[in-house]
Amino acid sequence: MFYHDNKLQYTVKVDKPNPAFAKMLQQAIGGIEGEIRVCLQYLFQAWGSRGPQKYRDMLMETGTEEIAHIEMLATAVALNLEGAPMSLKDEMAQDKVIGAVMGGMNPRHVLSSGLAAMAVDSNGVPFNGSWVVGSGNLAADMYANVMAESTGRLLATRLWEATDDPGMKDMLAFLIARDTMHQNQWLAVLEELGGLNGVHPIPNSFPQAEENQEFNYAFVSTKVNDMDGAAEEMKNARWGSGKSMDGKGEFKVVTATPHGQEPKLSPPDPRGHAQKEQMMGGAGGMVDKVKNKLS
Amino acid sequence: MFYHDNKLQYTVKVDKPNPAFAKMLQQAIGGIEGEIRVCLQYLFQAWGSRGPQKYRDMLMETGTEEIAHIEMLATAVALNLEGAPMSLKDEMAQDKVIGAVMGGMNPRHVLSSGLAAMAVDSNGVPFNGSWVVGSGNLAADMYANVMAESTGRLLATRLWEATDDPGMKDMLAFLIARDTMHQNQWLAVLEELGGLNGVHPIPNSFPQAEENQEFNYAFVSTKVNDMDGAAEEMKNARWGSGKSMDGKGEFKVVTATPHGQEPKLSPPDPRGHAQKEQMMGGAGGMVDKVKNKLS
Amino acid sequence: MFYHDNKLQYTVKVDKPNPAFAKMLQQAIGGIEGEIRVCLQYLFQAWGSRGPQKYRDMLMETGTEEIAHIEMLATAVALNLEGAPMSLKDEMAQDKVIGAVMGGMNPRHVLSSGLAAMAVDSNGVPFNGSWVVGSGNLAADMYANVMAESTGRLLATRLWEATDDPGMKDMLAFLIARDTMHQNQWLAVLEELGGLNGVHPIPNSFPQAEENQEFNYAFVSTKVNDMDGAAEEMKNARWGSGKSMDGKGEFKVVTATPHGQEPKLSPPDPRGHAQKEQMMGGAGGMVDKVKNKLS
Amino acid sequence: MFYHDNKLQYTVKVDKPNPAFAKMLQQAIGGIEGEIRVCLQYLFQAWGSRGPQKYRDMLMETGTEEIAHIEMLATAVALNLEGAPMSLKDEMAQDKVIGAVMGGMNPRHVLSSGLAAMAVDSNGVPFNGSWVVGSGNLAADMYANVMAESTGRLLATRLWEATDDPGMKDMLAFLIARDTMHQNQWLAVLEELGGLNGVHPIPNSFPQAEENQEFNYAFVSTKVNDMDGAAEEMKNARWGSGKSMDGKGEFKVVTATPHGQEPKLSPPDPRGHAQKEQMMGGAGGMVDKVKNKLS
Amino acid sequence: MFYHDNKLQYTVKVDKPNPAFAKMLQQAIGGIEGEIRVCLQYLFQAWGSRGPQKYRDMLMETGTEEIAHIEMLATAVALNLEGAPMSLKDEMAQDKVIGAVMGGMNPRHVLSSGLAAMAVDSNGVPFNGSWVVGSGNLAADMYANVMAESTGRLLATRLWEATDDPGMKDMLAFLIARDTMHQNQWLAVLEELGGLNGVHPIPNSFPQAEENQEFNYAFVSTKVNDMDGAAEEMKNARWGSGKSMDGKGEFKVVTATPHGQEPKLSPPDPRGHAQKEQMMGGAGGMVDKVKNKLS
Amino acid sequence: MFYHDNKLQYTVKVDKPNPAFAKMLQQAIGGIEGEIRVCLQYLFQAWGSRGPQKYRDMLMETGTEEIAHIEMLATAVALNLEGAPMSLKDEMAQDKVIGAVMGGMNPRHVLSSGLAAMAVDSNGVPFNGSWVVGSGNLAADMYANVMAESTGRLLATRLWEATDDPGMKDMLAFLIARDTMHQNQWLAVLEELGGLNGVHPIPNSFPQAEENQEFNYAFVSTKVNDMDGAAEEMKNARWGSGKSMDGKGEFKVVTATPHGQEPKLSPPDPRGHAQKEQMMGGAGGMVDKVKNKLS
Repeated sequence: MFYHDNKLQYTVKVDKPNPAFAKMLQQAIGGIEGEIRVCLQYLFQAWGSRGPQKYRDMLMETGTEEIAHIEMLATAVALNLEGAPMSLKDEMAQDKVIGAVMGGMNPRHVLSSGLAAMAVDSNGVPFNGSWVVGSGNLAADMYANVMAESTGRLLATRLWEATDDPGMKDMLAFLIARDTMHQNQWLAVLEELGGLNGVHPIPNSFPQAEENQEFNYAFVSTKVNDMDGAAEEMKNARWGSGKSMDGKGEFKVVTATPHGQEPKLSPPDPRGHAQKEQMMGGAGGMVDKVKNKLS
Repeated sequence: MFYHDNKLQYTVKVDKPNPAFAKMLQQAIGGIEGEIRVCLQYLFQAWGSRGPQKYRDMLMETGTEEIAHIEMLATAVALNLEGAPMSLKDEMAQDKVIGAVMGGMNPRHVLSSGLAAMAVDSNGVPFNGSWVVGSGNLAADMYANVMAESTGRLLATRLWEATDDPGMKDMLAFLIARDTMHQNQWLAVLEELGGLNGVHPIPNSFPQAEENQEFNYAFVSTKVNDMDGAAEEMKNARWGSGKSMDGKGEFKVVTATPHGQEPKLSPPDPRGHAQKEQMMGGAGGMVDKVKNKLS
Repeated sequence: MFYHDNKLQYTVKVDKPNPAFAKMLQQAIGGIEGEIRVCLQYLFQAWGSRGPQKYRDMLMETGTEEIAHIEMLATAVALNLEGAPMSLKDEMAQDKVIGAVMGGMNPRHVLSSGLAAMAVDSNGVPFNGSWVVGSGNLAADMYANVMAESTGRLLATRLWEATDDPGMKDMLAFLIARDTMHQNQWLAVLEELGGLNGVHPIPNSFPQAEENQEFNYAFVSTKVNDMDGAAEEMKNARWGSGKSMDGKGEFKVVTATPHGQEPKLSPPDPRGHAQKEQMMGGAGGMVDKVKNKLS
Repeated sequence: MFYHDNKLQYTVKVDKPNPAFAKMLQQAIGGIEGEIRVCLQYLFQAWGSRGPQKYRDMLMETGTEEIAHIEMLATAVALNLEGAPMSLKDEMAQDKVIGAVMGGMNPRHVLSSGLAAMAVDSNGVPFNGSWVVGSGNLAADMYANVMAESTGRLLATRLWEATDDPGMKDMLAFLIARDTMHQNQWLAVLEELGGLNGVHPIPNSFPQAEENQEFNYAFVSTKVNDMDGAAEEMKNARWGSGKSMDGKGEFKVVTATPHGQEPKLSPPDPRGHAQKEQMMGGAGGMVDKVKNKLS
Repeated sequence: MFYHDNKLQYTVKVDKPNPAFAKMLQQAIGGIEGEIRVCLQYLFQAWGSRGPQKYRDMLMETGTEEIAHIEMLATAVALNLEGAPMSLKDEMAQDKVIGAVMGGMNPRHVLSSGLAAMAVDSNGVPFNGSWVVGSGNLAADMYANVMAESTGRLLATRLWEATDDPGMKDMLAFLIARDTMHQNQWLAVLEELGGLNGVHPIPNSFPQAEENQEFNYAFVSTKVNDMDGAAEEMKNARWGSGKSMDGKGEFKVVTATPHGQEPKLSPPDPRGHAQKEQMMGGAGGMVDKVKNKLS
Repeated sequence: MFYHDNKLQYTVKVDKPNPAFAKMLQQAIGGIEGEIRVCLQYLFQAWGSRGPQKYRDMLMETGTEEIAHIEMLATAVALNLEGAPMSLKDEMAQDKVIGAVMGGMNPRHVLSSGLAAMAVDSNGVPFNGSWVVGSGNLAADMYANVMAESTGRLLATRLWEATDDPGMKDMLAFLIARDTMHQNQWLAVLEELGGLNGVHPIPNSFPQAEENQEFNYAFVSTKVNDMDGAAEEMKNARWGSGKSMDGKGEFKVVTATPHGQEPKLSPPDPRGHAQKEQMMGGAGGMVDKVKNKLS
């Protein structure tokens, strides 16, 4: 169950409001690298958690923290929109630099939300629930979380570069720090689960004897006309020879060759109403049936 | 540039067509864990690759291989749909088990594609380009790839469990093997980039001195009414004390407390047409302007 | 800022797990009538709130409560999925009723989440951020909230009808009760804002003198061939005559007639590359320019 | 059945074409507050209408009118795009103000539609059918309609503020007037259905005796560390004490406390292929089965 | 402007309601092959029409007719849902065939719409405005329309096969007939525009001298390992030799060979925060700048 | 199966990088008229191809070529982004023209991809799998392909107009040429399938005797108040009289009149919880049941 107070987790101060930066900040709210995604991702992983209790507990702790991050960013968007131009005529009358900035506003910040944050990304594309990954496999989920925090921290550092507002830089420095911690946190679980050797291949509960042994540690080179020795280069790479990362195989390089047949499908079922010509031309047993039906 | 031949990378054989399994296989084609996603993800990462050439080369190799996986699965879907019931009346006339299976078909396999695969997931939700992650940061991208191959292999093992068709099990055993390799392959790059210590926090090119030092290795516990000693439990966890995973800090546990202010926004801009009552009640300098305008 | 504990707001008990009901419950999590929507909607309205503080406070209180509702429903989905069939072959071997139920499962509950809830609706369509409405106008937002709680309570009563599991009925009776309260709560704000007369037309801060006076209280009948006297029926309806609901006009009925011109657009700009025939036929001054360019 | 003529419902005249305003107008066509949504919403509600005939009739009348509104706005977009810059080089050569405006164009107005309106919002995000609400409950639908007309009128007033083109202001003054009427119209139905007391809680056909009586008129305060007396403030609010809005209960304030258990899920089903560590650690009866399988 | 009456364009009668068929019919309402799409497509093409008036007129005529088709199908869905099972327990108690059918229902027909049609496809995926094509080029649009009516008629014939309800077959026979006409109608415009020779390549207003003359009538064979003489087969095909369809070139077959360079991008901009290793390894001029910044 | 080399199909050279043009080019990558769509469309059509082998072969050839087009455009986007401004402060300091351009950038090119192409359109809307059409009817698919290449070539010519960069114009002249060929190629199949007379109405395998003979070659005029003789105009048009395009009927014009009944639905099922007032007012047999239940 959840509770709140009325304060922010960390200070949000905008020294000089900038509606173009408000638009950019939306990426960190409703974008695929953003905070709604990690918030829901950690909470859904917690709510569906099966296995040791401590991982559910940890996911709940951090999922709850992320709500506070959405709150901080939503506040930052609203503050950056204060005093924003609300009409094209205003803009025309003002100096060119502001005009250029307005070209960079999200029009829905004026039209739909009345100068407040929305559940969309920096292009106004709505948040999408498909981004919330919870697979039921703890290791796969931890990689999803490391990945989310990595692209999230990367986004935050780019936002930090994009502004020189001291208040915004300070807020982002806080969020960047939290992403550092969260990367480490999910990595700690992966270590507990046994590290590369214990964790991989994910899922580690599928009996490897059942997988095709010829291809499970082979780098497949799909390059043709290999005049510059690509296959050779790949053989010398870390992924082309030597012990595999999970310690369970030996890397090798093979050239792509088809091991399968040329695919053959039956002629169309007449009730699917392909063109007549498609049904006549086939080799299968349905042809006569079709001819009878159509004649 | 790209080339093809007319054979499959690996044999695709369906012993007993099953339209409900065709629907499930769509998850591996157009779902977020599926092959269109990894194919486009590796290719876009290659096409936007900046830095050492060999990573671009490797991404191209494997991105190209993934097209062949979509092809195998699309063929498997079409073969599982052969002979599928195309009308509700057929189904009624037949025995109950087939009836139950048809309830589990994707109706668009009959109505839209004429018994062929589509660019959708197992619920018929279309593939979405937002899932194609290429961040411009090689380490973040490698985690995105490990994650994609982990959820992908997990999906393939679940499909393997869901069928007892020998042909399908054989095809899936091949795909599971490839996912084993691909997990290892992206992990090899992470090792080359320096492993946990060299790679994290991602991006490693942001000067850590700029991030907020108080919060970058602190586990924040958001739990209230802590009668069962959760904070204590967290302190003893791998992420609550000791060296951080990247070797750059010491884990600690802190209790969530607000470090920020209570957020205050200005009253609404009159041209945004909030309700009058919202504009009257504020404390800001716009109130008189509003009153004048509205009177 | 936000906090949690490890208990649920209300008991969630599933007496007889049913994966088809798990699929239906997803509508109340990730559907447009569901809890993720109201949770984010109230929180975003709070975070962007401009005007009297007490409305922000109230929105925060209830937005936070809604997270706990998602949690309850996500738990209910997971519990309904326990023991669910994970393969088509299992199903075949079992009795027909279970078979029929499996036809009604969401395949991603097996394939993607490993028997846990997801951020999708009962068809597997992902939650969409566009549903989160916060307009910056308090009255419009309250109607959005009444509407969300009305379709939400309607959904909960239909779920209540769809199951006879005592635990599920008890949980839904709690959620139905909360929706009763929340409907009343948002209506209370509308009363405080002045009721029908004070609130409408929304926004009440736009000077009504600026709107077209001929059409603002007129019911437009678009019906042709009115042999059954529809216009007459409309005149006698509450919306066809008498005082308007906001007390600011008199209802009347008018027959639809065009008050505008036939629209005329210029011929295509040559650089937009319409077909030649489109550019020749127009009446505008660009024709010669086009002819010259194309000859 | 439907008919048309070739005139517009109301004059659409653009005195000074402005492609940035064309982009903004798209919100009123294909946005969630726009006319495609209300058009389809009223028509689908009519087509699925069960109950008194007159409501179906009314919905058809107004649903048909809304098609004419889409037509007016689509014409306005096309007229605002006449003479728009079609290349970046044009823009560079021209004066800066036009340049700034082009930064604010929707590029697809040049690239995809050839200077015509599209079924998208002001960010180019496509219209989404999920916004079309028709619940089968007349009162819930009327609130959905009041909400749509409220956010719609709000949008129109913001567009009115954003332009000083006399033709556009005149067209918007007409549309604003129609929204005034439509708000009143749906409110009239709610009055006919019995007003607050008769209508709520929606649906009014669910026996209230079945809902949880402890929580149906209770405001739940989720605030912790209540040093500023929030609970007290809520008690004095309209929603914290006194008769409920529907006249069927007494408001009260309760402090959020968990009434439910700590959720416990079974360990993962082995065929879902969680990590081994998740299956070992649980307390349930599946553990041995897992061990046997994996050994 | 638009008008309506209260009758249907053609009789809609359901002899034996079938909720699984209701789900299938949704494809013809809200699917990509469905009637909302063609309705909006023809109307948007009309509203943005530039060039001879008669095409705008024709598009308006047929766009308006399509609204009546949505109405017919929405009515058919509602009638097929009458008496549908509304709970899982009902279904269990009844015979197996009905049970199997319910597995094939759209759960939102019970939960969201109360047994009425929705703006979604047969999988419950919402209608998407991106499907509404109006390019501003009349010939391209006519092909979009022929394509829409072709996949639309195909869908209608498959629905006709899927049911044996006489009323539904009669309604579909009407809709199939209308699609026959509409295919012919758009083809008539293409003939008027000059047929293959006059129309192609679309757009015909781009000076062909500007296109690359080496590749504009060449079939590119991307096949490798051509042991079965594919290139030869292609040379003998209609598209491999002889006059091109537009009469403006000669078909030829060429083997795919790269005519472009190996792409080289600069090293990453330091402010984009790629990993350090990416920035060091490059050959470009930014390297020193990066080193300085990072040291 | 698929292969690659490291060169581009055609030279991609950017003389003067322009981030606003990079944004526009995205339409040709991830837009509905773009290359991901045609690539997947041709490949899925090939993989599901039933009927003569040569069409599958041809589709594979061209589907594979299209991957190389995505590659070219992705490279062009990356090259246009080199040196792009990465912060709002940079922009302010620079001259106005660059400022205006930045207003026209896609912010995610900075924030999400680090100056590389993405699987989105020119508004940042993600590629959507629903655009991939493969119907199982060869003729319908060929029209889908002609349409895709027509809007695709139109898009390419508009991009050609939008830039004066010689390298970009050269690349686009190549892509325009390929679209010329591809239009011709799909038209060649339509000729082989019998041309207008053999192909239409699509599908040609549905017995035309089953379609409603009264309406299959009738132009329905929905215009009312026909004072300007529209019906007359339509009679004289190519689609109003004379032989139909498929040679199988005679065109005629009829005035829209309803041939169907006024639709009547039953009163709501009580378990769907409409409002009480809806259930009372109906004429059906469920009324008493409802009254009993509600009393």
